Amino acid sequence: MTSAPQLPGRGIRSPLLNIVLHEPEIPNNTGNIGRTAIVLGASLHLIRPLGFDTDEKACRRAGLDYWPRLGVREHDSWRAFTASERPGSAWFFSALGTRSVFEAGFSRGDWLVFGKETAGLPAEILDAAPPDRVLRFPMMPGERGLNLATAVCAAGYEAVRQMWARGDIRIECGCIREANE
Amino acid sequence: MTSAPQLPGRGIRSPLLNIVLHEPEIPNNTGNIGRTAIVLGASLHLIRPLGFDTDEKACRRAGLDYWPRLGVREHDSWRAFTASERPGSAWFFSALGTRSVFEAGFSRGDWLVFGKETAGLPAEILDAAPPDRVLRFPMMPGERGLNLATAVCAAGYEAVRQMWARGDIRIECGCIREANE
Repeated sequence: MTSAPQLPGRGIRSPLLNIVLHEPEIPNNTGNIGRTAIVLGASLHLIRPLGFDTDEKACRRAGLDYWPRLGVREHDSWRAFTASERPGSAWFFSALGTRSVFEAGFSRGDWLVFGKETAGLPAEILDAAPPDRVLRFPMMPGERGLNLATAVCAAGYEAVRQMWARGDIRIECGCIREANE
Repeated sequence: MTSAPQLPGRGIRSPLLNIVLHEPEIPNNTGNIGRTAIVLGASLHLIRPLGFDTDEKACRRAGLDYWPRLGVREHDSWRAFTASERPGSAWFFSALGTRSVFEAGFSRGDWLVFGKETAGLPAEILDAAPPDRVLRFPMMPGERGLNLATAVCAAGYEAVRQMWARGDIRIECGCIREANE
């Protein structure tokens, strides 16, 4: 369900982050990431094909009561996404990345791009990305990887932590607020 | 399934963290957290009652092929857990916390304690915890909360980031390593 874009969080003027899922396959993961996006004040973009329905009935059946509020946008392809959204500062998450997520310098309004559960981001996207923009979660040697929804949440909070540490946002009584509000 | 404790990650001498789930209800979440624990070199402790079976057959059916490797320990109660494990430096995650997770000072071997999905940690555990040990994830005002598995992953990576920033561990080619190895 592509609804009109809405402000993703109460009391902020623009999304803190923009989360992009390229061809997500598992509905529970995307639902879970929608919950993270709402909590973080992030927008959510889905690039087709998707492994599930996102019409109103399907979301209601899956208990995604917050879905309409999220203002998720769907795009027919990566090309259509870049043409319509013109993402500025983007970070690509991949097991093939050479830079750790802790070494990134996240800023407000950055785009966090994640690949599908079974295969990650395709070569045509990774090859076009600047190498220092391809990030990896550090792991124990030999481990295969994180669940997509947990990785998105950890990346999102690291980005929010950096914004907070720089004074771009405030945290007051457990809530994220504009710095100058 | 309670198996013999094992080293939770290849190439590390002791667990980086110890993750504790108090009466978890949803098997998918605990399975997902098990995957995070393996990736982070953390031990996993489950405090009964659990909302699901953890015998070998149930884990196999749920596709938790890594479960035996995890060396998860189950405890009959919070009291039994504290008596047998004697957790030293523990952090409690709760929407009732007043300190942000970013303000914690995590160290190697710390215990990260999470409550059940529907109700969080009970008053008897929170009331006994030092207030500066009760942590909250900052959120947009008015939002209800994160999925348990995503919160555990974000907390775990923030702890690992702090260990890395202090030089307690190294990250080399995307892998977590002992600092002096």
